[in-house]
Amino acid sequence: MSHEVLEFDVSSNVLLEKAKKDGAETIWDRQIAMKAKCGFGDKGLCCRICAMGPCRISPVEGKGAQRGLCGATADTIAARNFARMVAAGTAAHSDHARDIAHVMHMANKDGNYKVKDVGKLMKLAAEWKLDTEGKDTDEIAHELAEKALMEFGKPFGVQNFLTRAPKQRQQIWKDLKIEPRAIDREVVSLMHSTHIGCASDAESIFEMSMRTSLADGWGGSMIGTEFSDIMFGTPTARGTEANLGVIEENMVNILLHGHDPSFSEMVVLAAEVPELIQLAKEVGADGINLVGMCCTGNEVTMRHGVKIAGNFYQQEMAILTGALEAVMVDVQCIFPALARLSDCYHTKFISTSPKAKITGSTYIEFNEEHALETCTQIIREAIMNFKNRDSSKVLIPQIKSKAIVGYSVETVIQHLDKVVNSQTDVFNTVKPLSDVIWAGVIRGAAGVVGCNNPQVKHDKSHITLIKELIKNDVIVVATGCAAQAAAKAGLMTMEAKELCGRGLKEVCERVGIPPVLHMGSCVDISRILDLVSRVAIERGLDNSNLPVVGVAPEWMSEKAVAIGTYVISSGIDTFLGITPQITGSEMFTNLLTDKIEEKVGAKFFFEEDPIICAQKIMDRIEEKRDRLGI
Amino acid sequence: MSHEVLEFDVSSNVLLEKAKKDGAETIWDRQIAMKAKCGFGDKGLCCRICAMGPCRISPVEGKGAQRGLCGATADTIAARNFARMVAAGTAAHSDHARDIAHVMHMANKDGNYKVKDVGKLMKLAAEWKLDTEGKDTDEIAHELAEKALMEFGKPFGVQNFLTRAPKQRQQIWKDLKIEPRAIDREVVSLMHSTHIGCASDAESIFEMSMRTSLADGWGGSMIGTEFSDIMFGTPTARGTEANLGVIEENMVNILLHGHDPSFSEMVVLAAEVPELIQLAKEVGADGINLVGMCCTGNEVTMRHGVKIAGNFYQQEMAILTGALEAVMVDVQCIFPALARLSDCYHTKFISTSPKAKITGSTYIEFNEEHALETCTQIIREAIMNFKNRDSSKVLIPQIKSKAIVGYSVETVIQHLDKVVNSQTDVFNTVKPLSDVIWAGVIRGAAGVVGCNNPQVKHDKSHITLIKELIKNDVIVVATGCAAQAAAKAGLMTMEAKELCGRGLKEVCERVGIPPVLHMGSCVDISRILDLVSRVAIERGLDNSNLPVVGVAPEWMSEKAVAIGTYVISSGIDTFLGITPQITGSEMFTNLLTDKIEEKVGAKFFFEEDPIICAQKIMDRIEEKRDRLGI
Repeated sequence: MSHEVLEFDVSSNVLLEKAKKDGAETIWDRQIAMKAKCGFGDKGLCCRICAMGPCRISPVEGKGAQRGLCGATADTIAARNFARMVAAGTAAHSDHARDIAHVMHMANKDGNYKVKDVGKLMKLAAEWKLDTEGKDTDEIAHELAEKALMEFGKPFGVQNFLTRAPKQRQQIWKDLKIEPRAIDREVVSLMHSTHIGCASDAESIFEMSMRTSLADGWGGSMIGTEFSDIMFGTPTARGTEANLGVIEENMVNILLHGHDPSFSEMVVLAAEVPELIQLAKEVGADGINLVGMCCTGNEVTMRHGVKIAGNFYQQEMAILTGALEAVMVDVQCIFPALARLSDCYHTKFISTSPKAKITGSTYIEFNEEHALETCTQIIREAIMNFKNRDSSKVLIPQIKSKAIVGYSVETVIQHLDKVVNSQTDVFNTVKPLSDVIWAGVIRGAAGVVGCNNPQVKHDKSHITLIKELIKNDVIVVATGCAAQAAAKAGLMTMEAKELCGRGLKEVCERVGIPPVLHMGSCVDISRILDLVSRVAIERGLDNSNLPVVGVAPEWMSEKAVAIGTYVISSGIDTFLGITPQITGSEMFTNLLTDKIEEKVGAKFFFEEDPIICAQKIMDRIEEKRDRLGI
Repeated sequence: MSHEVLEFDVSSNVLLEKAKKDGAETIWDRQIAMKAKCGFGDKGLCCRICAMGPCRISPVEGKGAQRGLCGATADTIAARNFARMVAAGTAAHSDHARDIAHVMHMANKDGNYKVKDVGKLMKLAAEWKLDTEGKDTDEIAHELAEKALMEFGKPFGVQNFLTRAPKQRQQIWKDLKIEPRAIDREVVSLMHSTHIGCASDAESIFEMSMRTSLADGWGGSMIGTEFSDIMFGTPTARGTEANLGVIEENMVNILLHGHDPSFSEMVVLAAEVPELIQLAKEVGADGINLVGMCCTGNEVTMRHGVKIAGNFYQQEMAILTGALEAVMVDVQCIFPALARLSDCYHTKFISTSPKAKITGSTYIEFNEEHALETCTQIIREAIMNFKNRDSSKVLIPQIKSKAIVGYSVETVIQHLDKVVNSQTDVFNTVKPLSDVIWAGVIRGAAGVVGCNNPQVKHDKSHITLIKELIKNDVIVVATGCAAQAAAKAGLMTMEAKELCGRGLKEVCERVGIPPVLHMGSCVDISRILDLVSRVAIERGLDNSNLPVVGVAPEWMSEKAVAIGTYVISSGIDTFLGITPQITGSEMFTNLLTDKIEEKVGAKFFFEEDPIICAQKIMDRIEEKRDRLGI
């Protein structure tokens, strides 16, 4: 099975053969052992919200249990389960962002964490109306950090960043009463409302879910992005490489996996310490080779060009190469399976976050006070492990692609400035982008984001879909594992313009960008919100008027559910390649895929076939263009 | 089946016969339709935390899937599912408390919401080190409310109320790093840590669950209780009646059901408006009869003596009487089934909270700014509905019991003061209580709390257990649906002393209390924490040294999971009459029922048979006494 599954990831084929030989278990083995999925859970008809159950609603109307013991219907149960995924996803992004804000609160020009982008700090201070008069950088950073921390818990008011959205969008949120208040409050409130005996009306549950998700997109995630930029630098375009081939035989290979840049940034710093590089040479290696995976991989490649070993599904593959001295992780999307798998090799699997202790891992607690010290220690562990590598067990697939990454909104605008006519236009806006969309040179834009999911062939949906879109002159921005899929497929190179329609190709050439722009990690979808909103505002329109869409072809995490929900709540249609577990409720499915458009001007599309999905996206984009008369 | 099930609730038997006749569906019908429970879910082996699954772990080791697709084991999955119940339960209690704090923030001597217990306000202001100099009551209330609201979201520090615990207990929390920070943050953080690819170590997941639960017990719940007392009055001992017989044929009957006293208090006020009483008479009734259910019932009976129609399971029974003009609900534990059921009668089912819109209900939004106005309107609706009552469909079981309720800690201490020897002792302490425990006159104390659960015969476990305990000279304090079960069984009367052992009987006589003390709603378990801690502090001991236990014989809600967890985290053994959905993990089950004692000095006991449970409690109490040498 595995061969067929992996047609889009040839490097993994050889590794799965090797896994068999090495007696190593992978997700595909576990998928076979799991056999059939639970049909109730898969349709959203299983309720474990109280201990009277578990209750299961029969998917056949009029036959079997139609209501849980409390009377909850399929609609209620599906809506609640969905809402709790939104709550958990929002929690994950936001708790990550909180850590970044705490790091900024300890910014110290002589310490481990220094403000790197003072310009962005000052801009944000102005946006948030912080009095900066007579204060030095660190003081401003501390005060801004406190303001950010209050975004999680302030008793009154709504999220600061909402004002970045078009006025029309803000009005929609106000009218629907879904302006998010304090981020944590929204998560808690949604958990409360989905408790037994609270909300049963699926539509109101979804409205509350939208509010919570907006606390992610325009709250936690946006804080995560903006504050990371201030502390660690706003990404700029730079070259890198992607795929397992970035692991190097003669180096001490360290895989960075997880999400929070306050950890990974310190590892990057520590890996540059001359004594450590010297130590690596002393143990017989040529040096230290940091490689990244999942969103941590995105964070460090966007800011440092650290090479990308792969995306979500490849976390096991990287270990199977037998050439990793250490896997260092913090939070989110880390297979607990990595512990057992590492045991098949010399690889040290090091967990570092008190929020995410992993059974069977070596736990070395990372704390921000002793950040560099801890990271130095961890890297030393990796180096000293080099001697334990069994060369007979090493197999690194020699496959990798070049990629250009680092497209923050600031960097996108810098590139756009190249084509501004300095006689007639102003610099530093998104106008050139909106102009080419209005001119029809490019038809629209798609944000392709999300995870990998074993329900579909690894990366196939990502790549197929992206290729279709750029062929049809739709520019693609990408984050997360979707971005890494694109990078591995060579779609983030200048050469990829050859795969584009004529209009997009010309734009790529003139602006000097690839047709697929790496915008960062999953929290950085806030960059996409920002970019879309700037275009809308520039045209005096709402987001929902623009020919732009969001797509998550292979999503799997609760964060993705939160993201999809805030994207449609922000007026942007969202196409999901994996159908969410709600189809047991026709009413709730219709709400998300149809009726909700009346309220927020956007809706979900569920389409598992990437070719058909691309066609539906094009139809929608052209429909939006028609409505605009362009 | 229903008859056998209901041996402890004879009034329901006739009503279930009536339900058949009326074509009304009840939980027992739904239980039959549900058939078998899902064995995976029941054992905690079902994971729906990401969209790669659902995954199910085989309960047979070595056979079938032993790990989810990500590699999560039974231990991880059971721990995560449990943790999410703690998160949701904490969210429910705390979000309720937040509303109370918001209400205090609008306290106005000329408004709807006035400070009722100024003494308690001043005491709490002093405890929280609020500068009250030169401020009037409302100003102090507003500032204290802001401080409370910050307990939900403050970026730094731990919960204010932790200092009420014995020093030894505080040290345990500090050492385990489980002192709860901001309440909402703890919920969010736990949701994050249980996201895919975060924590997999079951023990650390449980430690984080303890921290979150403590944010409930010593945070949200305690704020809920204390601030409700300040705003609505600290409960004092008063008489009431309990069971469906409190519904009166010649009255406009209004059932108050839910949890948040900021709503129910206003309904109580509105029901006293002379014009409304007059209106009730005009439509042919003798007046307005408010009756309470679940925790709202407890809140209003503790402060006003409003009669108790029943507990959780009886919410449908009350409607089946055909004599309710309206059921008014806010949040939590409200069967969505009440909408369909009300349709079988003239009963208006009115939901009021934007947090809990219920399909099929009449929604009249309650908001605190127009509190009295809205409640007046709702009561008017009820009154005008009296004419629609179909007398041929009325059947009110003439069963009710007297009860004394209202035992806040303050009221308990006032009673204890009666037996203080004014020559040798000081007033206003819990010393007399600790003295009788130390003397062995009473062997210990049990907090009996929690819900109803159709897995066991309604109220049977509550009543059987409480009777066993008082027979063995264990004084019982009760809250929630357990308290209502006791009230209905006549155990909250002075006469109930006859069911007690000799020691407890004497204490009841001398102090003038029933052997089972009604301490309030589920959030009021914070009163029990407070009382136990006072006794421990008085003796210079930790809670875990005392011969006291918590018991939840018929629990069902996520709130109960949060409660059980904060009770053991507070050093008090907790006996659960319903086994939580974790038994698929031997390791996690052992952790909760054994190993955790090493860390927090208390553990869970799972025992479904109430007689055996009582015996185990007695053994544990005597064991604790032995260790104390008393």
